[in-house]
Amino acid sequence: MKNLSKVLEEVLRKVKPSNEECNELNAVAAEVMNRIKLSVKRRELDVNVILIGSAARNTWVAGDRDIDIFIGFDPSVPRNDLEYYGIEIGKEIAGDSYIIQYAEHPYVRAKIDDFVFDVVPYYKVDAASRSISAVDRTPFHQQFVTAHLNGREDEVRLLKQFFKGIGIYGAELKIKGFSGYLCELLIINYGSFLQLLNDATNWKSRKYISLLKEKTSIEFDNPLIVVDPVDPKRNVAAAVSTESFFNFIDSAREFLSKPCVEFFFPPQTEPVCAEDLREILSKRGTKIFAFSFKMPELVEDIAYPQLEKSVKSMCKALSRAGFQPFRSDIYYNSGLVVLLLELIVWHLPPLYRHIGPPVERREHAQQFKNKYLNDPSVFSGPYIQDSRYIAEIPRKYLSAEVFIKRELKNLKLSGAVYRSMKTGCEVLCNEDILKIDNREYRVFLANYFSRAQRRCK
Amino acid sequence: MKNLSKVLEEVLRKVKPSNEECNELNAVAAEVMNRIKLSVKRRELDVNVILIGSAARNTWVAGDRDIDIFIGFDPSVPRNDLEYYGIEIGKEIAGDSYIIQYAEHPYVRAKIDDFVFDVVPYYKVDAASRSISAVDRTPFHQQFVTAHLNGREDEVRLLKQFFKGIGIYGAELKIKGFSGYLCELLIINYGSFLQLLNDATNWKSRKYISLLKEKTSIEFDNPLIVVDPVDPKRNVAAAVSTESFFNFIDSAREFLSKPCVEFFFPPQTEPVCAEDLREILSKRGTKIFAFSFKMPELVEDIAYPQLEKSVKSMCKALSRAGFQPFRSDIYYNSGLVVLLLELIVWHLPPLYRHIGPPVERREHAQQFKNKYLNDPSVFSGPYIQDSRYIAEIPRKYLSAEVFIKRELKNLKLSGAVYRSMKTGCEVLCNEDILKIDNREYRVFLANYFSRAQRRCK
Repeated sequence: MKNLSKVLEEVLRKVKPSNEECNELNAVAAEVMNRIKLSVKRRELDVNVILIGSAARNTWVAGDRDIDIFIGFDPSVPRNDLEYYGIEIGKEIAGDSYIIQYAEHPYVRAKIDDFVFDVVPYYKVDAASRSISAVDRTPFHQQFVTAHLNGREDEVRLLKQFFKGIGIYGAELKIKGFSGYLCELLIINYGSFLQLLNDATNWKSRKYISLLKEKTSIEFDNPLIVVDPVDPKRNVAAAVSTESFFNFIDSAREFLSKPCVEFFFPPQTEPVCAEDLREILSKRGTKIFAFSFKMPELVEDIAYPQLEKSVKSMCKALSRAGFQPFRSDIYYNSGLVVLLLELIVWHLPPLYRHIGPPVERREHAQQFKNKYLNDPSVFSGPYIQDSRYIAEIPRKYLSAEVFIKRELKNLKLSGAVYRSMKTGCEVLCNEDILKIDNREYRVFLANYFSRAQRRCK
Repeated sequence: MKNLSKVLEEVLRKVKPSNEECNELNAVAAEVMNRIKLSVKRRELDVNVILIGSAARNTWVAGDRDIDIFIGFDPSVPRNDLEYYGIEIGKEIAGDSYIIQYAEHPYVRAKIDDFVFDVVPYYKVDAASRSISAVDRTPFHQQFVTAHLNGREDEVRLLKQFFKGIGIYGAELKIKGFSGYLCELLIINYGSFLQLLNDATNWKSRKYISLLKEKTSIEFDNPLIVVDPVDPKRNVAAAVSTESFFNFIDSAREFLSKPCVEFFFPPQTEPVCAEDLREILSKRGTKIFAFSFKMPELVEDIAYPQLEKSVKSMCKALSRAGFQPFRSDIYYNSGLVVLLLELIVWHLPPLYRHIGPPVERREHAQQFKNKYLNDPSVFSGPYIQDSRYIAEIPRKYLSAEVFIKRELKNLKLSGAVYRSMKTGCEVLCNEDILKIDNREYRVFLANYFSRAQRRCK
């Protein structure tokens, strides 16, 4: 397989940081570490300061600019103090250029010399299983990886870039993919990128991987289960969605049968233009709605599931009202949301089959009959079908667009989404969906309309 | 309740045969009985000849012209002989004016002096439970009714006419209603028409009625269960459909709250005219298809379930193809069938979501991808959703009409219906459904479009 090894060589040349890049990163990291240590000393705090994550483990991919520094507090320190000092120290080293990020607790993200530093306070617990906050586990992960990776850092880099290329790198809820730590564990388990890929071509749902000798007794209900070696109650792959899981399997098969660099570095999708969109829409013959609104105040990992739930509810409500959703998607970037809803039935005749009470329920039956027997708008009925009364009455909404606009508050949207949509939601339709003038959004549209599971021609 | 008793009196005046009518019927029946007995004697057959049914039990409704004469054979007589003699004797007394009817076995229906005689051969078994053919039970029914009715014939007449008026008299599969024998048992059980109606207002599904002291151990799965007192394994009300059952309950409630003669003698529905139909259709906004064909060769009770099954299959197939049936109905009279299908979605965009194999099934997955990755007609995909591949491909049928015409053989129609439709089926649409020029059919259409569960204004 000469071609395969050539491809991997070429990829490795791109993903392995150069000596200069390493030196630069190490120098900046060391300097920031020092500043934090001084800051800690000044405050007379009894804490650890450690470099953590891919920068520390040498598994970062060339071009990555994220560096994590953890500040370890004794578990006896109150949570408020931990948060307070974490942020104070972070701000101090950040100068002006920082933002507060929110995970389980807030921390500082600072921009220093082109690098992004996360300064995260944590509790130094005895064992990962005794973690107070999720980040407390991270130092144990680092110990484990450092002890077991045995020089296979480049394999991790290949894998990370592969996941990036096929769009499933990262455990965040917008991606639902593979985290850096998960990549490292997979390489430790399989020995190499290619051995993992070869095995993955035959994976079945609920694939179970454990680096521990004993099997855990916990049943995980995920497509991929990778037991955390430092905390066997935890599935490191819990974030991996069914789609990401199968996307990986499919991509592994495709790549091995036709190795090419494009898997790792896919060509950029061209944003859709008005002319293309017009042609696409006229071919598809569907009706496509874009609900565009702003939702800047929430953390992505909190907002994204709410957006998903809301789109699902909208589709369900449309179906119940007789319309037929075909596909939907979510654009969410820098606080701008566009919910895309494509329908194959969006307009209905005025006739609606209103299902009444069972005949057995005498009182309800009487009410129903009284109401509809004397209603001149009734088309047919009330009559009995099976065990119930039916009245054919005028349909409330003949158009999906009007239905969504007027029934917004009954669509079971999540609270934040509903409030954001109510504050100001633009509803665009068909060619007008390009009125949202945003390059990334137009790339998202192009992907929506192609979405082919193919990376090499 | 003066009004109620007045209504019943008026109805009784109409449904109770006059003395002249009784005398006429009895005279004709006696004469035909005699002719049959002579015919039997000439053939030296050892058989019983008995008058049976409502004519014999004096529970017939004025205007009824049906008389049943049964010829009882010893169970040792071979079935072929029984059928042969039954038909020969029937033909002999009928002269020219007869037809052969088919139930479990064939028999002669003869028209004599304005009366319709069914001459039915049966086996004289020891007990109803030992019946060889279904008709063998009938003489036992007659014995039971004669022994228990105790002069409540007029109550039976009221009940029969009530069922006629609300359209559920008769156990045939086109009606799925209450047979004459069932009416008699209900009156024997409840004592009177009004006591039955009062009780029926509170009936619940699986209503159980038995005239026997011991409860039967058999579980019947019908909305109404009336144990046959001469054969407790049998539910006399097995033919009563859920709709007929609830129609009765609903009608009982309505009648008792607003007694009126129209329940028994509803005004005739006016046939729909072109102008009305145009207005109705434009209001409903639906698409209505009439599939019209001839099916003269089958017995109604055999044809009707096949038509029902076929319409159900058509609706299911339409749904699967993305169209939305709203309601359907069957016109079936003298061999002419019209299947009515009303749709709220009958036209779809060219986009079709083709669900492919699970990603896990590697071989199928490969075939699917090979096929659709290189198909220029594909709109989007193949992509992965959940655990499967999806390809958005051109829809085969954009129109429900074309779908049904072209897919006729795949619609899982019953054999006889399929053959009849293939031989010559006219497909009419919207206003053209009135091209079938037939008064009864136009009455059927008028009922289809009104169907209000209300009999008195």
